[in-house]
Amino acid sequence: MSPYTAVELIRAKRDGRPLDDAAIEWLISAFTNGEVADEQMAAMAMAIFFRGLDDRELACWTRAMIATGSRMDFSSLTRPTVDKHSTGGVGDKITLPLAPLLAACGAAVPQLSGRGLGHTGGTLDKLESIPGWRAQLSTAQLLAQLDDVGAVICAAGSGLAPADKRLYALRDVTGTVESIPLIASSIMSKKIAEGADALVLDVKAGSGAFMKNLEDARQLATRMVELGSAAGVRTVALLTDMNTPLGCTVGNALEVREAIEVLAGGGPGDVVGLTVALANEMVSLAGLNADPADVLANGQAMDTWRRMIRAQGGEVDAPLPTARFTDEFTAATAGIVTTMDAMAIGTASWRLGAGRARRNDAVQAAAGIELLVRPGDRVAAGTPLLRLHTDTAEAFGPAREALGSAITIGIEAPIVRPLVIDRIG
Amino acid sequence: MSPYTAVELIRAKRDGRPLDDAAIEWLISAFTNGEVADEQMAAMAMAIFFRGLDDRELACWTRAMIATGSRMDFSSLTRPTVDKHSTGGVGDKITLPLAPLLAACGAAVPQLSGRGLGHTGGTLDKLESIPGWRAQLSTAQLLAQLDDVGAVICAAGSGLAPADKRLYALRDVTGTVESIPLIASSIMSKKIAEGADALVLDVKAGSGAFMKNLEDARQLATRMVELGSAAGVRTVALLTDMNTPLGCTVGNALEVREAIEVLAGGGPGDVVGLTVALANEMVSLAGLNADPADVLANGQAMDTWRRMIRAQGGEVDAPLPTARFTDEFTAATAGIVTTMDAMAIGTASWRLGAGRARRNDAVQAAAGIELLVRPGDRVAAGTPLLRLHTDTAEAFGPAREALGSAITIGIEAPIVRPLVIDRIG
Repeated sequence: MSPYTAVELIRAKRDGRPLDDAAIEWLISAFTNGEVADEQMAAMAMAIFFRGLDDRELACWTRAMIATGSRMDFSSLTRPTVDKHSTGGVGDKITLPLAPLLAACGAAVPQLSGRGLGHTGGTLDKLESIPGWRAQLSTAQLLAQLDDVGAVICAAGSGLAPADKRLYALRDVTGTVESIPLIASSIMSKKIAEGADALVLDVKAGSGAFMKNLEDARQLATRMVELGSAAGVRTVALLTDMNTPLGCTVGNALEVREAIEVLAGGGPGDVVGLTVALANEMVSLAGLNADPADVLANGQAMDTWRRMIRAQGGEVDAPLPTARFTDEFTAATAGIVTTMDAMAIGTASWRLGAGRARRNDAVQAAAGIELLVRPGDRVAAGTPLLRLHTDTAEAFGPAREALGSAITIGIEAPIVRPLVIDRIG
Repeated sequence: MSPYTAVELIRAKRDGRPLDDAAIEWLISAFTNGEVADEQMAAMAMAIFFRGLDDRELACWTRAMIATGSRMDFSSLTRPTVDKHSTGGVGDKITLPLAPLLAACGAAVPQLSGRGLGHTGGTLDKLESIPGWRAQLSTAQLLAQLDDVGAVICAAGSGLAPADKRLYALRDVTGTVESIPLIASSIMSKKIAEGADALVLDVKAGSGAFMKNLEDARQLATRMVELGSAAGVRTVALLTDMNTPLGCTVGNALEVREAIEVLAGGGPGDVVGLTVALANEMVSLAGLNADPADVLANGQAMDTWRRMIRAQGGEVDAPLPTARFTDEFTAATAGIVTTMDAMAIGTASWRLGAGRARRNDAVQAAAGIELLVRPGDRVAAGTPLLRLHTDTAEAFGPAREALGSAITIGIEAPIVRPLVIDRIG
């Protein structure tokens, strides 16, 4: 019989007493096999929301979640493995150019990704707008592609940290998502189980990010870097801005098009800048001798992109889908664009059909929003600010409603904070 | 469709935002009908543990729990109704002499009681040690007995505040019992639904009580008095000591025997004193013109006790059961008895068979503990301090283990706090 009971551990955490390692290991394992009930874990998660987890508890909690599943093994590869994770933002298509760029620099990049829920899109949803492309790979296919192409973006198998899947679903319905240690252990249990040698985290702060507040984002980044390092994964985090969408497109096919522009040597400056900044960190962590800016400029990254997409069935030269309907959102007054709120634009894109409200909903490949201006641009009354795309014209109303006052127009140029705010690690 | 979702309400409470009345009404009703899941209510209960409920929220929460069930109606009775509730303690048999005493003073006393769980005994368990006595009455029988005898102690029907039953069971397994507003609403929803005109609360503080700490007990008492008054029930609370067991017996038949001694004009001073103190409050709240001390002394309370027990099938002159085995717990050293810890003695009595570990366990009628000394008594080494009673001799070992250092012997007389510490209302 176990020396622990869930109720005693909940009360200990509730009253601010730390949980010892064996207690945490028992709790996570007993929750995963159903011995600890959902209502007990919900109460524990809420107690952790209020009381936190100290560094030892957090490291143990994360290890215990990893131990409920399997761990990828890339030791057969000759290239150094390096992984990237973004906490999610609006218009964040960086993984698309970044993975082939790093592979072209000599790394193996296993990007096990997810689908979107709510106002942020999912990397797999974006790539699925490419005709023929498929997200599901077997472990053998994944290893072969990593060895050959160097980059894979595919669906994560259910075998990695299954405790996290169960716990996240529970937190989602019990108001316990917003706990920094629980977020850190959720992300890092999966990332450590993915087994790369090195990891770069893009931790976003701002209206369109999960962390609205810079200090919360910094704390999350710090705890994740500590967890990675403690698990023997070389880890660095960049704190980046997410008050304004990244780049000029939000949606699935729209973002793929922009990613391809970047790989072709063009694309918006912020997307190029962040891609190169993250790539520089990854090259350095992987101990490679390559200059990502050069590799992007000389077309090698684009070559790798094409091989990566083809390897997963993608028709790399087929046209991307376009929406049946488009509409413009225009400036009400003249002036200078002061803010373009990422959250509102993300929500509007979701309502246009680019995102899903429930886990099994379908998404529209072509739906989304083009940003026709950027903060600081001068506009006249009636200037188009956004172009809305959808296959379902009735979605324009709700999307416009979500946009509300997303774009403000003033008389002075806004002070825009730098895209990369800080580096931790 | 409801304008509320559980997760939004949990997040509001978690973040310290008050819940409006309609939200609370929806939550309690949706929880009772299963629309709000157990894990959601568990997270809410933990959020309330940390954030509390303000007076408006608490009153609304309590009303909402009452509204999930039926409410007793005593308007057909000519006597004023008055009820009593104790938050529970070790050796607390006060309801047994108190209900017939009040009835003999002219009140109608409907005591809807429960069974014990853990270290505190249940009033119904105690009375069931009387051969033939039955706890289950129909509402018609209850009303007839109240009209005729004036006092009823019986099992509460399941129709009163069913939300509370469901919520309490959930709190019990999720470490969320110890929340003062949730305790107050749990007790008061049932007591208000029981429909008496007036209510006296015996709120205990000390090692053997639910509230270890006097300030917590005071806060609980204050909030319960406010809830009663807000619901139109005249309510007073006495804050009483529960560091030492009440009286000289702990157990079922043992406590009935002591209650009968009190009704016969004898019994331990603390039991008599608290019975009369509570009776005085009840007589005053009920607007009766009677002196409980006289009614106890002149035998009228005993007459009413006999009628009350007989009305529920109890063989009032049959001998009470006695235990198959007894054993003595003696003083290790000479000196003055300094403490007799209520929690340890309650736990030992439970282990002897007087209490139950699970809801459907049977209890031994005759098991329990007699206190042969009281704090302040001088003892020699080897003086018997307690007499342990059980039908299962193998229980002596675990009971002695629970007693541990329950009784301390020192060189100076202890300063004992008064039994009635304060009055609120």
